[in-house]
Amino acid sequence: MTGATDRHGLEVLGMDESLELLGSVAYGRLAYVDAGVPVIVPVNHGVDGTVLVLRSLDGGKFGAAIFGKPVAFEADSLDPATRTGWSVVVRGRAEVLDGEVAARVAERVDSWAVGDGAVATWVRIVPDEVGGRRLG
Amino acid sequence: MTGATDRHGLEVLGMDESLELLGSVAYGRLAYVDAGVPVIVPVNHGVDGTVLVLRSLDGGKFGAAIFGKPVAFEADSLDPATRTGWSVVVRGRAEVLDGEVAARVAERVDSWAVGDGAVATWVRIVPDEVGGRRLG
Repeated sequence: MTGATDRHGLEVLGMDESLELLGSVAYGRLAYVDAGVPVIVPVNHGVDGTVLVLRSLDGGKFGAAIFGKPVAFEADSLDPATRTGWSVVVRGRAEVLDGEVAARVAERVDSWAVGDGAVATWVRIVPDEVGGRRLG
Repeated sequence: MTGATDRHGLEVLGMDESLELLGSVAYGRLAYVDAGVPVIVPVNHGVDGTVLVLRSLDGGKFGAAIFGKPVAFEADSLDPATRTGWSVVVRGRAEVLDGEVAARVAERVDSWAVGDGAVATWVRIVPDEVGGRRLG
């Protein structure tokens, strides 16, 4: 809504609009660093105010790689036919959720994209940065 | 087609099928590490045999962060309504393409998802690992 464009000619979206778009889709991709190597996994998510919530695949190696560490989450809706759509990236640190907060979150996020892991850990990402772009 | 499932109950796809699915969509997301922090960007791609090709946003900071370094690329097609679809992740190192190879690649990859950067560098990712999963 700002009308601003980045150096690649894409419209830059404000935070409110970016979060609204994030909340309009059921899944995105979480990127994190494991032993210096980037890892990317599709995962369902929800938006709770300005906070992103998602279910981790398990609480073991994955948890050790993301909790307290910088992560990035991307969701998009791009139509190759019309070359229009949007992409939003959230950068922040991942925190584990448990107890009542996790129970509340679990009701809000429909988690199916990652399969049914025996161990389900809920994760919160408080954004340091939310960046949205619109095409077309 | 293997019928094998991972520990999350998702069907594991073989490399041939994974590459075929990758080639069936117009864009995915590249994840890389910049100063220890994960970065994720949507980008158009093409599949050339077992090699992934894509156009980088520019040749500067981005190039320095990815060339010769481990990257991950993810593409998917998941339908929230039916909870079916697939996701494929390629892990490997990014190499710059130039000269005749870049010209040939440029003809094969329709690049629109990243906007029109003034500097377009073509990138090749020779996979160390291709991992595909199918839902539903």
